Amino acid sequence: MLHSAGRFVGHDQIDVLLSQAGQAGFRGHEEHVTVLFSDLRGFTSVSEKLEPEVLIEVLNRYLAHMTHCIEHFGGRVDKFIGDAVMAVFSLPTTRADDADRAVAAALYMEAELERFNRTLPEGVARLAAGVGLHTGRVVAGLIGSPRKRSYTVIGDAVNTASRLEGMTKHLGAPTIISGDVQDGLQQPDRWLLVPLGRFRPKGRRGAVEVLQLRGERDGSAWSRAVDREIAVATEALARFQAGHFKDARERYDGLARAGSEDDGASAYVRLAAHAAAYEAAQPGSAWDGTIELTEK
Amino acid sequence: MLHSAGRFVGHDQIDVLLSQAGQAGFRGHEEHVTVLFSDLRGFTSVSEKLEPEVLIEVLNRYLAHMTHCIEHFGGRVDKFIGDAVMAVFSLPTTRADDADRAVAAALYMEAELERFNRTLPEGVARLAAGVGLHTGRVVAGLIGSPRKRSYTVIGDAVNTASRLEGMTKHLGAPTIISGDVQDGLQQPDRWLLVPLGRFRPKGRRGAVEVLQLRGERDGSAWSRAVDREIAVATEALARFQAGHFKDARERYDGLARAGSEDDGASAYVRLAAHAAAYEAAQPGSAWDGTIELTEK
Repeated sequence: MLHSAGRFVGHDQIDVLLSQAGQAGFRGHEEHVTVLFSDLRGFTSVSEKLEPEVLIEVLNRYLAHMTHCIEHFGGRVDKFIGDAVMAVFSLPTTRADDADRAVAAALYMEAELERFNRTLPEGVARLAAGVGLHTGRVVAGLIGSPRKRSYTVIGDAVNTASRLEGMTKHLGAPTIISGDVQDGLQQPDRWLLVPLGRFRPKGRRGAVEVLQLRGERDGSAWSRAVDREIAVATEALARFQAGHFKDARERYDGLARAGSEDDGASAYVRLAAHAAAYEAAQPGSAWDGTIELTEK
Repeated sequence: MLHSAGRFVGHDQIDVLLSQAGQAGFRGHEEHVTVLFSDLRGFTSVSEKLEPEVLIEVLNRYLAHMTHCIEHFGGRVDKFIGDAVMAVFSLPTTRADDADRAVAAALYMEAELERFNRTLPEGVARLAAGVGLHTGRVVAGLIGSPRKRSYTVIGDAVNTASRLEGMTKHLGAPTIISGDVQDGLQQPDRWLLVPLGRFRPKGRRGAVEVLQLRGERDGSAWSRAVDREIAVATEALARFQAGHFKDARERYDGLARAGSEDDGASAYVRLAAHAAAYEAAQPGSAWDGTIELTEK
């Protein structure tokens, strides 16, 4: 469904139109959107091995692939920041199924990156990405100086999406979404989501629920296996949040061992380590189940 | 001198020309530049108090001011990321005095922000910025997807400049430059620079020398006072790096007390705390004087 409806033509024309509107006093407006941040891991060290022309060629090819994934599901590439991509689902027009579209795009990006990796010049390490999604209120408008203005969004929801992307490194989970994205899904049962817990990034007031996006629930043997994993992870998290750290740790350890060949394993290793840390140093009675991160 | 030579006209035309060149196969090329990142502190909480239209108006006015400061000294605004500004000194053409221009622009930005703050709507808290400058090798080129491409720079030097901006929060110093910027200055004696030490941001291989930019050395009583402060801070840092933590802490404490009304004080408070921490838990004999940061 999303596939057929998603193709979005003429972003460049929209930019032109919006910037003309801006000359005539285009105003800031509030919107509820899903923001996607993606970033390549270790691209800087890859980039140091390539000639400048090859580097730009590889990066542009990668960005074109990611843009295709985003636009295919009706998202809008807001900006590139080096190898990072910021996208919004969706502006200038929001849609009821924006969260589902953003999730579908994130999965498509993962698959496309796999394909892209096979086309890399010899000697270049495979690229790995981190993707973070968050849904919330933003202010959209034409932002910039009089001569360099573009239609973009600002607000805490943008910062949170960026921080979620940063948390993928810490959590060992390549693609994570916030609880607010989950709440906005029109087809919540369509997606394989592993609850990882509540985290408060360093220096932030609010905590955020984090789920790992593992794929689409398609009835395959793999999908059913992930479902069983989700059931164990959900139980492990409940134990953790209830203060039964030893029990939680053992369940996470089991998941980590079972999933060794799988991209889920490294998240469970991290969660087992968190449980072990709380096991060793019990939090006070006021603890609300939130893991305080020491990194941004 | 920089004032008269710095005015830079027609960035938008350059963009157009470069993107036409891109159609014809514009290639990536290596450059040695100074990268500036600036970011507003707490703008998100300010933004939650303003109506969307007012927010966009205030932000655009701020960005126009900062752009003016950058272009006045021949820099090029690379992009806006919300309220953050990334600028490069200077492309497409580098200049021998790029580092001096970037430093001059950073000081102008500080002064302009002061003026800008006086024009804010009632009830809006004064804005404070963090600015980080780093000089190094970048790859410049037209980067993006086929339909959304802009002339920009990538590379470790860009990441380092961004991390320096992030370190301004930790260090309590609104404007910091790296040792590589200092090394590139044509008029090193023109600027009041306080050495803060060597820092390794979390998750980075390399450590970076950090200096706080305090102003222009102009022979005034204030400038002479900062010079005396720099002498004490330089000595405190030497003691710190030689492992004389108590001595260093006492000197930093003295600077913090003396400079209470001054923007230098909060950096000395942080450095005194670092010295106290090392005093309490002495580093091993292999310690090279670098402070490991636990935040990015």
